[in-house]
Amino acid sequence: MKKILIQDGLILSMATNEPTPFSKNILIEGNRIVQIGDVSCTDDTLVVNASGKVVMPGLINCHNHAYLSLLRGYCDDLRLFEWLSEKMWPAEAKMNGEDVYWGTMLGSAEMIKSGTTTFADMSFFMDEVASAVKDSGIRAALCQGLLFHDDNVDRRIDSTYKLFSRWRGKAGGRITTMVGPHAPQTCPPDKIKLAMEVAKELGSTIHIHLAETTEEVEQIASQYGKSPTKYLADLGLFDTFHVLLAHAVHLSQDDIRILRNLKGGISHNPVSNQKLGCGVAPVFELAKEGINVALGTDGAASALTLDMFEEMKAAAWLQKNHRFDPTAINAYQILRMATINGAKALGLADEIGTIEVDKKADLILVDIEKPHLYPHHDICALLAYSANGADVDTTIIDGELVMQNRHLLTIDEKLVLHEAKRCSGRITG
Amino acid sequence: MKKILIQDGLILSMATNEPTPFSKNILIEGNRIVQIGDVSCTDDTLVVNASGKVVMPGLINCHNHAYLSLLRGYCDDLRLFEWLSEKMWPAEAKMNGEDVYWGTMLGSAEMIKSGTTTFADMSFFMDEVASAVKDSGIRAALCQGLLFHDDNVDRRIDSTYKLFSRWRGKAGGRITTMVGPHAPQTCPPDKIKLAMEVAKELGSTIHIHLAETTEEVEQIASQYGKSPTKYLADLGLFDTFHVLLAHAVHLSQDDIRILRNLKGGISHNPVSNQKLGCGVAPVFELAKEGINVALGTDGAASALTLDMFEEMKAAAWLQKNHRFDPTAINAYQILRMATINGAKALGLADEIGTIEVDKKADLILVDIEKPHLYPHHDICALLAYSANGADVDTTIIDGELVMQNRHLLTIDEKLVLHEAKRCSGRITG
Repeated sequence: MKKILIQDGLILSMATNEPTPFSKNILIEGNRIVQIGDVSCTDDTLVVNASGKVVMPGLINCHNHAYLSLLRGYCDDLRLFEWLSEKMWPAEAKMNGEDVYWGTMLGSAEMIKSGTTTFADMSFFMDEVASAVKDSGIRAALCQGLLFHDDNVDRRIDSTYKLFSRWRGKAGGRITTMVGPHAPQTCPPDKIKLAMEVAKELGSTIHIHLAETTEEVEQIASQYGKSPTKYLADLGLFDTFHVLLAHAVHLSQDDIRILRNLKGGISHNPVSNQKLGCGVAPVFELAKEGINVALGTDGAASALTLDMFEEMKAAAWLQKNHRFDPTAINAYQILRMATINGAKALGLADEIGTIEVDKKADLILVDIEKPHLYPHHDICALLAYSANGADVDTTIIDGELVMQNRHLLTIDEKLVLHEAKRCSGRITG
Repeated sequence: MKKILIQDGLILSMATNEPTPFSKNILIEGNRIVQIGDVSCTDDTLVVNASGKVVMPGLINCHNHAYLSLLRGYCDDLRLFEWLSEKMWPAEAKMNGEDVYWGTMLGSAEMIKSGTTTFADMSFFMDEVASAVKDSGIRAALCQGLLFHDDNVDRRIDSTYKLFSRWRGKAGGRITTMVGPHAPQTCPPDKIKLAMEVAKELGSTIHIHLAETTEEVEQIASQYGKSPTKYLADLGLFDTFHVLLAHAVHLSQDDIRILRNLKGGISHNPVSNQKLGCGVAPVFELAKEGINVALGTDGAASALTLDMFEEMKAAAWLQKNHRFDPTAINAYQILRMATINGAKALGLADEIGTIEVDKKADLILVDIEKPHLYPHHDICALLAYSANGADVDTTIIDGELVMQNRHLLTIDEKLVLHEAKRCSGRITG
């Protein structure tokens, strides 16, 4: 079996409640971490020199629409409705499977280059999304976005079954699948129930948007006389299912109480929320109630960046300032949100999210021998508040080197840029 | 005279009210831009290939204490008073001239590598600060921070005179000087008056902190029965002087009216403000009144990053979300804040801040052939919302190549890291 030895790195395992960086070697066999300690290498071992680098778990992006990387910067600084109706929806309507494939490849290239090893994605053309995940070497939890605004309900449900039958557990186990009812305002009660039935039948987790905007809260209140959270709770969504909630910006105290026993977690997406002017998710209050809060970027069409280091900074800055309290959240908590909390939110905490023996080998080497990461008073503060994606030197996913010395090994970067340009030109031209 | 030709770049001059990127060559002779157009090179010209890169003015960081880079990550996630009294002040008290030199070199290395070509600095040990500016090749507007909490008033005023006599216009004109009364709460009325007299005598601009925290506002209200802005206005500070105001977070409508005719500008420092939980500066309201708002990082001890691309993102996200309005500020406005507005704030708009013939050659090449900067729907959105400092490939300051292919040419980067580690170890050990 293939062996990789990560030598002389400063390991931040993220497996402990307090940060405890230590210098050891890590031995990977196949796709798993098999030893952490004073391991020496044998002849058949590929040695990766991690001297001067932090070795940490790969980052986990819990909410993305990676294909939308093709529309990065296509329309910014507009009001949400104008952005959607005049720009995004017409452009999305022109996208075909090829566009989705190259958009997802572009997003995957960016993610791997900025240290993300797993992402949760809600998209369409799922064969193409899954193919891009397979080809790029990244890990992903995929769902077909289930919108119910037209007569194509059966087709969309069918796409979900196809996704599960064709792709669940594929790409050497890198692909997991979820059921993806889009959002309370796009899924009436019978459709939420339908999605729950499908999820039950498939034994699946669920990924859904929740309370991103005040408009959604108002709409659900006028339709059902309750909050979006209560709307989903009353339909039984939180009773048995493992649920990943994206955004969760507008929550009342009652909503937070409802979510107290949430199995799964919340993907907090501060860059997208801020850039669209949506508001401030109650991260501090959620965490205080023991609710698992992870981080996501949302699609690059709204956020522009899929760099989880940017997301970490944004999350920290936003919470500290919103509460007028620099102690509202600390660097290690932020790093946990981007790693082990993400793994929990995706139901993958037994496999990824920390550096521990027997876990899948998803890890990154961050080069800290740089002016903006000096001196080394506090590694966690440097990673959470000063590092950016370009400091990631090496990315390993499922035991495979997918980037080394910032050179992508599983993706032809030039080809991806070329095809992204070609496809996006056709869509927006 | 030395000639550099910047060839085939996509120029974003920042000289127009709307973004108008165009492809031309730029000829630099000595320290100035002498031609923009279809210039071809002669034998004595150094050609810099800018194909696939945006050429834009170097970024201007309007508020820094660069020596504090030595304390980056030393103490985070603490309340302001605890941070200052238990950590920062004891550490700063141990710093000597050598520490300040290497701290400023460390900060300058980070700034050059992330595209900043000019910074405004309020520090002490000004000979060492100025020496670091001279040695690093960066441009800076320097002032001695004038605090008046002890009997050393004469010594500090004397340091300001020394700074002007020794360093004003030195390093080939890269060093300019300012008078730096620290802040309303540390400068009683007679000392503000004294600083104004010194500035008048020296024909100098002024750099001062203003209304960073609610504590300051409360203190000035209880001492003088007015806001910090009114306090300075009543002392005549805004009547004749060109003033650079750092922070300006807590301003009333009356304060904004007072500042309407401000000569100079405001350094908005959103990363530091957010990280310390200070609040949201009224950037939208200030800009609406025609007041010049630029960007700064503050010291790395609070902000951790001196990357102006991070500052641009933070400024955009904060304003859009604070006003629940994605149109509150747009990408080009953000880029102006980081370039020409900064030049205006420092009184250097005739010399730097845009790419125009006869201006000083301070410019950067940003590599946009990368996944996170693709496709190229809108260059300004990519630069403001997705780029980071590591995308800067080449930095030219005062006609000198100070970084090329991300390799520092005027700074021995390894030596700076080594000395920063040595000095910081002594201070905090």
